Order: sequence, then C-alpha cells, then structure tokens
Amino acid sequence: MAQHCKQLIFLGDGMGDRPVDSLGGLTPLEYQRTPALDFLAAGGECGLMYPIRPGMPAGSDTAHMAILGYDPFKYYMGRGPFEAKGVGLDVQAGDLAFRCNFSTLTDGVISDRRAGRIKQGTDQLAQLLNEAFVEGLEGVKVIVKESVEHRAALVLRGEGLSAEIGDADPHEVGVPPLEVKPLPGAEEDPAAQRTARIVNEFVRRGHEVLAKAPVNAERAQQGLPVANVLLPRGVGTAPNLKPFSEEWGLNGALIVEVDLVRGLGMYLGMNLVNVPQATGGADTDELAIAEAVVSALESHDFVLCNIKAPDLAGHDYSPRAKCEAVAKVDRAVGYLLDHLDWKQHVMMLGADHCTPCALGDHSGDGVPVAFYGYGTRPDYVQTYGERPCATGSLGKIGRNDVMYLLGNLAGTIHKFGA
Amino acid sequence: MAQHCKQLIFLGDGMGDRPVDSLGGLTPLEYQRTPALDFLAAGGECGLMYPIRPGMPAGSDTAHMAILGYDPFKYYMGRGPFEAKGVGLDVQAGDLAFRCNFSTLTDGVISDRRAGRIKQGTDQLAQLLNEAFVEGLEGVKVIVKESVEHRAALVLRGEGLSAEIGDADPHEVGVPPLEVKPLPGAEEDPAAQRTARIVNEFVRRGHEVLAKAPVNAERAQQGLPVANVLLPRGVGTAPNLKPFSEEWGLNGALIVEVDLVRGLGMYLGMNLVNVPQATGGADTDELAIAEAVVSALESHDFVLCNIKAPDLAGHDYSPRAKCEAVAKVDRAVGYLLDHLDWKQHVMMLGADHCTPCALGDHSGDGVPVAFYGYGTRPDYVQTYGERPCATGSLGKIGRNDVMYLLGNLAGTIHKFGA
Repeated sequence: MAQHCKQLIFLGDGMGDRPVDSLGGLTPLEYQRTPALDFLAAGGECGLMYPIRPGMPAGSDTAHMAILGYDPFKYYMGRGPFEAKGVGLDVQAGDLAFRCNFSTLTDGVISDRRAGRIKQGTDQLAQLLNEAFVEGLEGVKVIVKESVEHRAALVLRGEGLSAEIGDADPHEVGVPPLEVKPLPGAEEDPAAQRTARIVNEFVRRGHEVLAKAPVNAERAQQGLPVANVLLPRGVGTAPNLKPFSEEWGLNGALIVEVDLVRGLGMYLGMNLVNVPQATGGADTDELAIAEAVVSALESHDFVLCNIKAPDLAGHDYSPRAKCEAVAKVDRAVGYLLDHLDWKQHVMMLGADHCTPCALGDHSGDGVPVAFYGYGTRPDYVQTYGERPCATGSLGKIGRNDVMYLLGNLAGTIHKFGA
Repeated sequence: MAQHCKQLIFLGDGMGDRPVDSLGGLTPLEYQRTPALDFLAAGGECGLMYPIRPGMPAGSDTAHMAILGYDPFKYYMGRGPFEAKGVGLDVQAGDLAFRCNFSTLTDGVISDRRAGRIKQGTDQLAQLLNEAFVEGLEGVKVIVKESVEHRAALVLRGEGLSAEIGDADPHEVGVPPLEVKPLPGAEEDPAAQRTARIVNEFVRRGHEVLAKAPVNAERAQQGLPVANVLLPRGVGTAPNLKPFSEEWGLNGALIVEVDLVRGLGMYLGMNLVNVPQATGGADTDELAIAEAVVSALESHDFVLCNIKAPDLAGHDYSPRAKCEAVAKVDRAVGYLLDHLDWKQHVMMLGADHCTPCALGDHSGDGVPVAFYGYGTRPDYVQTYGERPCATGSLGKIGRNDVMYLLGNLAGTIHKFGA
C-alpha cells in the first residue's frame, strides 16, 4: 500500500467529561459552541476511544503510548524513564530512572519539598553529585540531571537492579526522607534489596555533598531554603521501545505542552517542535500552535499535537474554564480546516483521556474521537461530543487501534496476508 | 446445545468500499439498488467486521482464515502452503511450500517470467524434476507439482528448514534468477542458510534438467519460449490447522472462485464444490453459484461461498463495474432468499475485506455484515451498506468472531461453564 496522505492526531488533553449540572446536564464539549469540531464530526467518522481498557483511567504517559501504538500493558514500566529522557538524560533500555526533587532537610526532617522552588544553581548541584558519584555505587553508574525549578532526574545503570522499590520522597513535610525499601512482595528479592540500599546511600551521601555546596551557602545567606537533599521517587525501568520511525515507517513530530509526553516523544526519537507561545496553561496561544502544526506537516509524515488547557480545567473542577479551553481547541481546529488541503491529510481529533470536572482527576470513560479527511466514510454523527460520537460508525476504539485506523486511511499499514 | 439449523457464509469478495465522488459520495453498496441485500439487513442483525484488526488490511487467505475461525495471527505463515495444497500437493504441517513459475532463462537472464504462458507439458516437466530430485537434497524431500499455465508448487519436507529466506523469482525480466539468501535478521540462522542453499541448488540443477526436456525441445522448434527454469517464491511453513470438521464439528463445503481460498479449504479438509459456470470473473454465473449453494446445503451443515467479481472491480479502480458486481451478488442472494427455508438456515452476508475503488487495493476498513435467518434478533438497520451496518446491533465484529456468532444462532457452539 502506498502512502496517500499525511497524518495528524490533534488532542485536547483530558477534554472528555461527564454531564455537568451547571451546564444543564451537558458536558463541556456538548455545551460549548464548537463549529470547527462539529464540522469534523459531521464530515468524518466518529467513535469512543478507550486508550487503556474500558473503565480504566489513563495517565498522560500511558494514553499517549497507546495512541502512538506502543501497548502500555506490554511496555509501560513507570514514568521515570520518560521524565529522565525529557530533561535530556541519555536513558538506555534497562536503566532505572527516577524523578527527583531538590528539597530542604532541616534537623533531619523535610521542611520544604521544593527547596523554595529554587530556580538557579541546580545545574551546579547536579554536577557536584555527578562528581561525587563518579565511581558509581556498588558498581552501578549514577547520573543526575537538573530540570526546571526544583526538579531533576536520576538514572542508575548496571546489572542486578530492580524497580520494585519505594520512594525516598515522603511526599509531605515535617518527616524525614523515607528509607527506601523493596515493595511488598519483593522483600526477599536480592536485586530490590540492593537497589534500595544504593538509593539510600545516594540520598545519604548526596545530602553530605549538597550541604557543602556553594550554591546553598549563598541561599542560606539570602535566607532562602537550601537545596540540601535530592529525593528520588517514581522509579521506572526504561523499556525497549522501537523508535517511532522504525515502528511505523513515518517521520513524526510532536507539538505538545506536557513535559512527560515530550519525554515520551524524545524516547521514541520523534521530532519535538517548540512553540514559544505555547504556555501549557489557559493562556496558551492556540493559533500559534495550529500554525506550527501546519508548518510541521510540510516536513513530516505524521504530527501529534496536544493542547493542555482542558485537562487543567478538569483538574481545577471548573466547567466554565473547561468550556473556554474547549473553545481554544475549536479555534485551533478551525485554523487547521482552513489551512490544510484535506485531500492530502487525514486527522483524528480527540483527547488522551477524560478529566471530568466533577472528579478533578482522570477517569476511564470513553473519549470522543472523529476521523476526518482523506479516505474516511463520514457517518451519521452531526456534532462532536461524548454522546454523539458514541453513535459513530467506528464504535468503541480500543487500546493501540488509533495508529492502525489512521494509517489505514493514509495508506501506511501493510497488508497481512496475500 | 443441539444443532437447530444449517449455516451459510456468503461473501462478495472485497465488496466493502469507501465513498466515491462519481457515485454522489456513496459507496457502490450504498449506490447500487440491492433489494435482496437490503431485505437481509432489514430482517437481520448487522455490524461492521474487521477480520484482522481495525485498520489492518487483510489478504484473501488471512481474512478467510479469520472468518473460518483460525486466528491468522496465530497460524498464518505465508500463502505457499495453501497454494501448494490447492494444486493437489500433499502438504504436511511443518513442510516448506512455495509458489513457482516456469520461466524462460536465456543467456543467464530471465527473458519471460511465464515461459509464454505455457499451457501444456508442465506435468511432464514437473515429473522430470521429481525424478531428478528423487534422492532429495541434503536429506530433504523435494516434491513439485504443476498448476494451471506456467504455475506450479514446490514442497520441501525435512528437518532443519526455515521459511526465513527470500525468493528465487526476481519478479522482473532481463536479470538472472535471484540467489536465495536468508532474510535480514536470519543471516546467521543455520536453518535459513541451509534452506537457501537447498533452494539455490534446486533452481540450478532444475535448470539443467528442464533444459534437456523433450517438451522444451518441441517448444523451441515451434519458436515458443522454453520453460527451462522453475523459480520458487512466497515461501511459507505449513501450519498445523485442525480440520474444519474437528474444529467446529461441522460438515463444511466451500464454493469459491479464488484458488488461494480453495487451497485453504482443501488444507482444512473441507468439501470443495465445483461450479463449472463460475468463471471467477465479471461474467460469472451468479445464479448457478446460488443453485450450487442451495444444493450443497442439502448435504452439508455449513457452506461458505465467495463471489470474486466485486474485488476485481475494486482492483480495477472501477466503481461502475463494482456496482454491477454488487448487483450480481444481490441476484444470487435473491435466489437464496427464495429457495432456502429460513427456519432451517442462518446466514452471514458480508465480504472478506474492503477493496476500495479509490485505492485499487485492499484496505483495513470495516466490512458490512448482516446475519439473517434462524435465531437472529433483527435490529433497526433497514438497508445493507457500510454506514447503515455500522449502526447495527452487532457493532464491531472482531477477528475470529464470525464462527461463534453464526454457530450460536445455529446452536453448534458449546456452552462454556455450567
């Protein structure tokens, strides 16, 4: 089969929802006027997508993995590796990767989990740690890299490691760092015992190193909380994922506002397009994002774009803010309708998961999707929304189906058989 | 569960399609007047079937395997074994089987891939090869059998063989036969190396044998291209498939116009009904085929029938020809409606896959199906077609579901549990 057209996945993060009383029993997608989204639904084929399994809430990482065709049940082993990749660490399959916070340890207890949201000097702190652990720990290589503010990532590389361990970060103040232990069920596993011991030693000796750092001396002088301990959490084993270009034979770009998804994209070797006006917040510039999508499609076979605002509104329990975020997505899609040749493109409009305003968190509800453009068989659905799309001809769309459905329309899925 | 009625699967090969501009944005199935197909849809229960997985284009072989309840992802290992079985070779599980062409080798290069579409004498050529290789090659048994025109099949039987090898047929003229090599990734596999060596030796020594064949001396005298080399391609390992009667407890017949599917049916030990008026082309006699179906159902529990014409029209990019082929299917189904007692029969009307006229090739789009007759719960669908059937009560029908859905209505699926 030959490639007929280019492919776009356009997501409003967490855009799916549930009926909201204050919106007259409609969802934000149903309530908000969305002429562009409705145009897609009316001219395309619709369905309800369940990125993980029906009823199971998805994370941003697992949902995007499934949408990009990497089965999260098979490959997902924690967010750590994507975070670490996202901050620029060289993560290799089999590595253990952690998210970390620079925190303030005062008299043996955590007094500030974010070290006053320290903004500068964490590069020097990370360098001090890397120098201190240059010999490794028990033969395991230790690599630290700073991210924005108090955030950082840690990679452990070597034989005989296990991700079956708990966090060092207690996730609260007024208590000491947690002693890292094997998870229940892994207490007798020598690899988990060894890994826990290594992380505890990393925290302990790391604290000694950071306590003497010039950056912290300056902060103490200025009366700022010192960043004198680095606390790992959210460990994951780096999975062996084929690069996107190899897995799908497509030259793919990502335009996303979520660091974790950026990390996944880097992990997959996708091209990350930076849009300076994309803030990741309610004030993001959706037209600048849409422009970047059109531009990226000139030089790529495949683009995935995600606007974060709807998810934030869901987490904030705010239906009104979610309606405004939906309107932003609609304006971006309107721009795409006007600026792309739809005989040369096919897209899926949707969301990675639902973030119902009533919950303030992700749910496992189906996500409305509409496929529009080249090759589609427009069905009877006339407006975009949770309930209209559920009547569409694509029915229930399962985990890992999206890349096949979209690629089938674009002509990039190989025939199985003769 | 007791058997209540007999079962029929009636397929228009590649009959599903996409909207066609010249048909007013309708598909051929939607555009063409199809009173019999619509009667089935209105009186039955409908859905969209994906024989492989949503979005993955199916071959004729893999689609029919899935429809007959043999999971192609589990069992499919190439078309070779079905081709070989179809020409009457005794193929056993584990055998390597190839399709072959008798070709013309002139001064070391292929001058005619089909040896002037040689019609007579290939039985003698095959016999010469079988005699020449009666001792086998490296302990591997070699069996050749001619098919129609220049076509033939080859079976290799023995230990330590691998299907991870390329073709000897270069698929073009003006070049020498390809030296068979292990596929990328199998270069170091001793079985692949050995199999490649055996096939190369078969081609080389086979050429010596065929060059001296009396059939070719005659052809040379008549100025016809000689059939002096036999080129294997499309290797597959013969899978271990339970006979249809054992797998489903049904005495089954096939009435099909596709050799590859006939081969699959023989492989499964199904009864192949020959209909002399079935040409496999646009001129096929659909009423003779329908008569044969009615007759076969008198002596069988289960019949699968496939009319090839719609697929040909799709491969020819011809919506008008496809509409005519659809009308043929409609007439055949009309005959079945008139001549079968529908209190004693249940059928699924459908297709093995879509062959959209816009593509000229198979696609992974959903295939409209309608179950009609004994035991069905008619839904709200009123006409047969891609979009109406998508609203049917069966929703999306997945790989390997058909034999269960049909057998459930016929009462031949055993209860699981108490």
